[in-house]
Amino acid sequence: MPDTTTLTVQDALLTLQKFWTDRGCMIVQPFNTEVGAGTMNPATILRVLGPEPWRVAYVEPSVRPDDSRYGENPNRLQTHTQFQVILKPDPGNPQELYLESLEALGIDIRAHDIRFVEDNWAQPAIGAWGLGWEVWLDGMEITQFTYFQQVGGQNLDPVSVELTYGIERIMMALQGVTHFKDMEYAPGISYGEAFGQSEYEMSRYYLDDADIQTNRDLFERYTAEAQRLIDARLPVPAHTYVLKSSHAFNVLDSRGAISTTERAKAFGTMRRLAREVSRLWVERREELGYPLLGADLPPMDGRAVMPPSRGVESPEESYAAELASLAPDVTRRLALEIGVEELPPHVVPEAIEQVRRGLTEKLGATRLPHGSVVVHGTPRRIVALVDEVGAHEPDAETLRKGPKVVAAFGPDGAPTKAAEGFARGQRVDVSELVRAEFDGVEHVAVRVQETGRGVLEVMGSIIADVVSGLRADKNMRWCDPELAYSRPIRWIVALWGDTVVPVSVSGLRSGRTTYGERTEAGPLIEVENADVLLPKLAERDFLVDPAERRESVVAQAHSLAASVGGVIDIEGEAALVDEITNLVEAPHGILGSFEERYLELPEQILTTVMRKHQRYLPVRSAEGALMPYFVTMANGDCDDDLVRAGNENVLRARYEDAAFFYGADLKVPLADLRTGIAKLTFEERVGSMADRADRIRDVAAALAEHVSLDASEGETLSRASELAKFDLASQMVVELSSLAGYMAREYALKAGETPEVAAALYEMEQPRTAGGALPESRPGALLALADRFDLLMAMFALGAKPTGSSDPFALRRAALGVIGILRSQPTLSTISVEQGLRAAADQLRQQGLDVSTESIADALEFVTGRFGQQLREEGVPSTLAGAVQPLAGSPGKAEAVLRDIETVRGRDGFPRLVEATQRITRIVPQGSPAAYDTALLQEDAERALHEKVVALPDLAAGTLPQWADAATGTVPTLERFFDEVLVMAEDPALRAARLGLLQTVVERAPRGIDWRSLHSALAD
Amino acid sequence: MPDTTTLTVQDALLTLQKFWTDRGCMIVQPFNTEVGAGTMNPATILRVLGPEPWRVAYVEPSVRPDDSRYGENPNRLQTHTQFQVILKPDPGNPQELYLESLEALGIDIRAHDIRFVEDNWAQPAIGAWGLGWEVWLDGMEITQFTYFQQVGGQNLDPVSVELTYGIERIMMALQGVTHFKDMEYAPGISYGEAFGQSEYEMSRYYLDDADIQTNRDLFERYTAEAQRLIDARLPVPAHTYVLKSSHAFNVLDSRGAISTTERAKAFGTMRRLAREVSRLWVERREELGYPLLGADLPPMDGRAVMPPSRGVESPEESYAAELASLAPDVTRRLALEIGVEELPPHVVPEAIEQVRRGLTEKLGATRLPHGSVVVHGTPRRIVALVDEVGAHEPDAETLRKGPKVVAAFGPDGAPTKAAEGFARGQRVDVSELVRAEFDGVEHVAVRVQETGRGVLEVMGSIIADVVSGLRADKNMRWCDPELAYSRPIRWIVALWGDTVVPVSVSGLRSGRTTYGERTEAGPLIEVENADVLLPKLAERDFLVDPAERRESVVAQAHSLAASVGGVIDIEGEAALVDEITNLVEAPHGILGSFEERYLELPEQILTTVMRKHQRYLPVRSAEGALMPYFVTMANGDCDDDLVRAGNENVLRARYEDAAFFYGADLKVPLADLRTGIAKLTFEERVGSMADRADRIRDVAAALAEHVSLDASEGETLSRASELAKFDLASQMVVELSSLAGYMAREYALKAGETPEVAAALYEMEQPRTAGGALPESRPGALLALADRFDLLMAMFALGAKPTGSSDPFALRRAALGVIGILRSQPTLSTISVEQGLRAAADQLRQQGLDVSTESIADALEFVTGRFGQQLREEGVPSTLAGAVQPLAGSPGKAEAVLRDIETVRGRDGFPRLVEATQRITRIVPQGSPAAYDTALLQEDAERALHEKVVALPDLAAGTLPQWADAATGTVPTLERFFDEVLVMAEDPALRAARLGLLQTVVERAPRGIDWRSLHSALAD
Repeated sequence: MPDTTTLTVQDALLTLQKFWTDRGCMIVQPFNTEVGAGTMNPATILRVLGPEPWRVAYVEPSVRPDDSRYGENPNRLQTHTQFQVILKPDPGNPQELYLESLEALGIDIRAHDIRFVEDNWAQPAIGAWGLGWEVWLDGMEITQFTYFQQVGGQNLDPVSVELTYGIERIMMALQGVTHFKDMEYAPGISYGEAFGQSEYEMSRYYLDDADIQTNRDLFERYTAEAQRLIDARLPVPAHTYVLKSSHAFNVLDSRGAISTTERAKAFGTMRRLAREVSRLWVERREELGYPLLGADLPPMDGRAVMPPSRGVESPEESYAAELASLAPDVTRRLALEIGVEELPPHVVPEAIEQVRRGLTEKLGATRLPHGSVVVHGTPRRIVALVDEVGAHEPDAETLRKGPKVVAAFGPDGAPTKAAEGFARGQRVDVSELVRAEFDGVEHVAVRVQETGRGVLEVMGSIIADVVSGLRADKNMRWCDPELAYSRPIRWIVALWGDTVVPVSVSGLRSGRTTYGERTEAGPLIEVENADVLLPKLAERDFLVDPAERRESVVAQAHSLAASVGGVIDIEGEAALVDEITNLVEAPHGILGSFEERYLELPEQILTTVMRKHQRYLPVRSAEGALMPYFVTMANGDCDDDLVRAGNENVLRARYEDAAFFYGADLKVPLADLRTGIAKLTFEERVGSMADRADRIRDVAAALAEHVSLDASEGETLSRASELAKFDLASQMVVELSSLAGYMAREYALKAGETPEVAAALYEMEQPRTAGGALPESRPGALLALADRFDLLMAMFALGAKPTGSSDPFALRRAALGVIGILRSQPTLSTISVEQGLRAAADQLRQQGLDVSTESIADALEFVTGRFGQQLREEGVPSTLAGAVQPLAGSPGKAEAVLRDIETVRGRDGFPRLVEATQRITRIVPQGSPAAYDTALLQEDAERALHEKVVALPDLAAGTLPQWADAATGTVPTLERFFDEVLVMAEDPALRAARLGLLQTVVERAPRGIDWRSLHSALAD
Repeated sequence: MPDTTTLTVQDALLTLQKFWTDRGCMIVQPFNTEVGAGTMNPATILRVLGPEPWRVAYVEPSVRPDDSRYGENPNRLQTHTQFQVILKPDPGNPQELYLESLEALGIDIRAHDIRFVEDNWAQPAIGAWGLGWEVWLDGMEITQFTYFQQVGGQNLDPVSVELTYGIERIMMALQGVTHFKDMEYAPGISYGEAFGQSEYEMSRYYLDDADIQTNRDLFERYTAEAQRLIDARLPVPAHTYVLKSSHAFNVLDSRGAISTTERAKAFGTMRRLAREVSRLWVERREELGYPLLGADLPPMDGRAVMPPSRGVESPEESYAAELASLAPDVTRRLALEIGVEELPPHVVPEAIEQVRRGLTEKLGATRLPHGSVVVHGTPRRIVALVDEVGAHEPDAETLRKGPKVVAAFGPDGAPTKAAEGFARGQRVDVSELVRAEFDGVEHVAVRVQETGRGVLEVMGSIIADVVSGLRADKNMRWCDPELAYSRPIRWIVALWGDTVVPVSVSGLRSGRTTYGERTEAGPLIEVENADVLLPKLAERDFLVDPAERRESVVAQAHSLAASVGGVIDIEGEAALVDEITNLVEAPHGILGSFEERYLELPEQILTTVMRKHQRYLPVRSAEGALMPYFVTMANGDCDDDLVRAGNENVLRARYEDAAFFYGADLKVPLADLRTGIAKLTFEERVGSMADRADRIRDVAAALAEHVSLDASEGETLSRASELAKFDLASQMVVELSSLAGYMAREYALKAGETPEVAAALYEMEQPRTAGGALPESRPGALLALADRFDLLMAMFALGAKPTGSSDPFALRRAALGVIGILRSQPTLSTISVEQGLRAAADQLRQQGLDVSTESIADALEFVTGRFGQQLREEGVPSTLAGAVQPLAGSPGKAEAVLRDIETVRGRDGFPRLVEATQRITRIVPQGSPAAYDTALLQEDAERALHEKVVALPDLAAGTLPQWADAATGTVPTLERFFDEVLVMAEDPALRAARLGLLQTVVERAPRGIDWRSLHSALAD
């Protein structure tokens, strides 16, 4: 039963409207055509463009046809309610304002675990992206929080902050209900009563009843109308039609009527239109003189804390006098804290390193005395301590270089015009010039006295450089006029002893105020001097040293797991532990549990949800079996029971979904699932997913002909081929597509298939990522190859080659997969890329597709090109790569040759053998026959070579080591031949005989090697 | 500048949401496809169907493409903001709740003049209607208030109350701004800044840039999808597509792309779909078990007053004892008050009369002593007083009829079985039977004593009958389970002396509580006894006597007008004065003024706005010239200055609009306006309005050939024909289409046309209504005829005949116009309907339309049929109408004959003349020649007749009076002929001669008369 003391859904919406209007936002209405998100309302998507300020909040019922579930799924609705806030420009404290809004909703932000977890937003369809977080309330994502950087392909200046509250999620949590229908929407009216019928009927429309041709027609007309309106320079109605086209597309998509090609084409159209609308909007606003530009926005602090970013201007002059009076050998500790909004976990160590290196290098370039530099960091602060920093640089004398001595004095020793001119320029008498050596040459010079700068000046400048130099893999802008970084930098504490180091970097000023947990009553903390910064942070339980924090995470996790007799596989979960360590400042472990019955689900499902979605550490028994527990790491003190319950609810909902799908899937025979994939469109011109699976089956069989499989492998391949891709029709994979392959293995085993068949089905999806694990079994490898050959050949046949920036079908990854598999499985090295592509082409042709020979050649070139690039990326020298270039179409063979080269390159005589061999390839014209009339060979050297050649085994299909063994002895004879014999004899017959002799040597050597490149490689 | 202490627009929206949620409404979001009104949101249009309760409130930005004005018009927007409330069922006090919501918006409802002015809502396109009001705030319509009666063709049970606040209007008034853009939307953001660009661009789209073919295609696809979804039994998505089709239609309409035929067809489609959606929704809800049926809605009184409708159950028994003790001759006054929500003005006198007649008749049917019955009434109460009503009916003795005496006693005088049976049945001894005469026949009978009933029983029953019997032209239902009336009946005061007469009628119970102005602090008033009801109402300044109220209206108006040296044309404004009298209970005159410069506008504009829109009495100088003043009649005390200012603002805005249009129109040459009507589609298959005007011009010229116009008339017709309909292109007429013709006259005069031309252009639109004024000049009449002949012929040619319930082109009115003009202009009587239709057909054919001869015949039959019907409706006896039936195609001639009949019907001998004439028509077979061989006529009687006939003048083209003069003398001779001569002689030659003789008589008589019918008519 809902707790009647909590807000109803409608009260929550009114409360948020009130909250944000009280802070100066205007309220607009939901848009009057279907939108997928509040972002698409023109009050966001257009208003964030251009220089005008804008603060707005509104409710947006957001329609996502794909999320239709007939109202049956407890958490998923085709129309869910977003509450959208746009703050333009960033007011400087959007997180604080947001937290205050949660309090307005009755959420005790001190008791709950509220975290800002990296989640970046990008909508390539409209050329838009931003950086930010998903906000977690006890593990549940309740809000998207984004600093918009670009929209419609335009950089945003100023940057807007977007807050998108997921109302249903927040209210289900607050009301403690497990199905959206059970929420109290209004007093006495449940959400289901209010919207249940609509949810069902609209789901029916989107999933079953929407007329496909009608929606195709609508899409065409909407996009055409949008274009017409762009041409008429009317961005507002044009945008409306972009939205309508987007909705029509979504309807088609949820009806399963969009092929990959169509998707790419439609996205292209919509992207172009959206960009043009954006551009036009800004133009129009400019023509209108940016009407809102003069709007005077008051600061948005109110009750919400303003981070200590706007430190008072430091009174630099007064410090200068004070410093001057200090003894030259005074040293004090320097403390620097760079306060940021939550950095993504992987950025924290990078930031620490950047600050450490920056301080070290920049201090090193000054004369300021200083001790060691130690840097720590959490997601919210990078803290550096430098011991024994002196008050001043010592004064110094330097020489300023003048003309060379030879030019400075005449033969008479008198200063030349050049010397005089230099002295005049330096405002010294020519008699004051001294001599000094620069780069080994004697010049005249003047002595210049440099007065040492004070610590505040030096450090102020260094810190400003360090702060403004911070960069991450993805950087963003916020309200600061110049800075750019992973997340906003909000404050700087810089103290030398008890003195503030005045730092001024763009809009930031340093001070002595640091910032505790935002949810504390009084989060701003005065720092008296550099020595107390760390202790003061430690008082708040902030573990700023990552190592210490990680230890705490591990210790707490161990201890919590031990309390239920379990362990945490810290080594296996190392990456997750690292991530968790950098998600919190004050790790506070909480043990949660879930119902044991969920353990019946495949482990992959359970752990995927725990790790990827929730960042929970799975608890295992000593034997390694999963236990029904998890450890989550909250940030700082909270109400453990409350936070535990919240996290458990989130996990339960996720597992409940998964259990439902899993159970439903197990009831369906594999054959039915395999039949079911006929309903999944792969690409309309190349049929359904079932057509594709059929092709994969047959291509795999064709490839197997080049390989000697044993009987058992043959049976495995045959059975796995029949089932290929069946799991794509399972509800679990439809829901969590990353489980494709995993579920195939799982369901195959449950259905009584052999472990080998299950493994092959699993392996056919490998490698899952660039550099991911490769198939181990040969049947799996053959299926994986067939899968990728089919994809590549189909797309090339359709002319859908990747372009520089666009690779919608992930053909690069497919090519790399082919190469990786062939390189990893020596026994498959007999398979060439061309064979695979031709086999795929055969199948496509049998299904009626026109596959041109050009497209096969193109595909082949594409794959071999990837191979070359892969070798370069692996650091293989280009010469070495060039040596196997002739084998680029057989990556397995190329790989073998590369290994062989490593094996033999150090052997005595091998380089000379290679040199001799490549010398032949330089001399002998291409196409010369490997035959000669021995009678014509009369000179000793050529007769000697002839005898050696006759004894050479034919290793054309052999290996380099074999060749080295066999041919190294021939090298002296060859060298003598080159020394003594004129190959290019005037007599054509003789010339042909000598060339034939040499060519015979090369032809007996292993094929596929570029000897000249190999020669260069050995020289590297 | 806006008054910063008043609410911003967004605050107002939040305030209303808060207000209604506090009273148990749920809040939903605006619909996510374009709707023309909040009504169309499924939260209204679907949820009002079926039995489930529903209380909802929401904002609805309502899109009306036709109202697009590029944001330039101060009051009109293509998207305006409605705030919509649905209370289902009617909570019993919706007006009170509504007034409280105005207070929540900061409106001082005591200081302002707030009135509920009849405004009924009907949307035939969705089979929906309701009765209610527009709510006036100081003369400005701020809210639509409707009791929904039917939606989707379904009767609603329970009835829903719909409140639709016009947010922009309310907020412009509250903020005191004169242009919507100047409203403060949010702090520091004006409405124009927030929405101005969108308003401009969407106006551009709707007026200029929407692609017509695209929107036609969209319309087709939307309606098709709606139908598919109906077939799939999914009312929710089906409704969405009905809305989308409606919007597409509106876009086409605002682009001027919808012909009358298309409109009719599209409306037909949308109506059908809407009805099916409604039906389906109810079916689906029933299948779902009406999920909300159990919802327990609390009463919605709160602070709002509940009208005294739910009087306590009257303690009937206790009264009975008390009454029994009263002396039989005690009489007391009876007072009855039936409290209603504001009746439409025209209903008030009807209601008074119904109550008066009901009480009088029903009291007359009892034996209760009573004095005179006096009934008064206001829009909110009907008050009846009956003096000297006795406490009891006297007891009475009646006779109950038995068998006839002859059957009751045998020959022996002993009672028969019949008498015994009757006595037994009546439970008396047979000896107690008496004899009494019934209808002149003696029966046996028994004496029955009837005990008189008490006054409470008698009056309770009578009053219940009177209340439940109240009916108006349009009746509605509300929360009462059984009653139906013009507006809800909310309370009954019924007192006999100081005793409550217990009345129970459906949900109402009588009491002694009456109800003052709703805006008073304590509006409920105890009435101690019947004598004080009127005085207590008078204390509130309620003038319940309509005559007294009218006097007060007149006196105040006179006095206010006199204060500025003006007068009110009470006689000329009599209908308006009557209306005003019944719009208020306590007339409170306020004099307002407007800027003198508006007097430059044509009077018709000024007075139309004052009378029709505002119910203001125009103030005139003694000479009859309009003065810049008006009198409005507020209801009861208010802040005169505030109310005056509000009304002046409303009028100023309306006049400002008008002045703008007028000024703009005057700048355009008439020829350009005439050219401009080419852009107005009349009907796509018969061209533009310009094509139609061309045809009218040429038809008028053709008709003029049948009439002898003088030279000046000819010139007038020629010039006026060239300009016909030009004013339809003027902005003023586009805005206020009822001014068509008026503006033509006005603009023609201003442009220097002759007064005659101006008059003709004005008259061509006459008659404007059934029974309206007809053209006076012949050029005007010819144009008016041509206009209507063209319309009729065009539509019949297209096959668009009116059907029983549908006459979208108002062809009935056109036909009646033709008949009216021809009947009113004797000098045009030479024009026949057929001539007119043929002339119109010629023009249509010249413009390429295929006009079949059948369609001309059909049109002719249609018009002549109307003529017959018109005569019947005028009370012309069917025989008399039959007499001129042969002239139905020439209504002018028919009219003349009818007048002639009236002239001569009383003359001596005329009836005999007619009888004789019709006798001839009975005898002589049709087609007999009017010639005979005189030689064959030998008998005296026939020779005498021959002589008379020879002397008869030929009056075939003459009139009846001439015929009477000429032929009456022949009658005796004719009668003798009939007496003495056997017309049907056996000798064929002789028979032919006699028939020829008789036929000659008829042929000399005026043509076009059906003598047999005339004979019957004279006999009537």
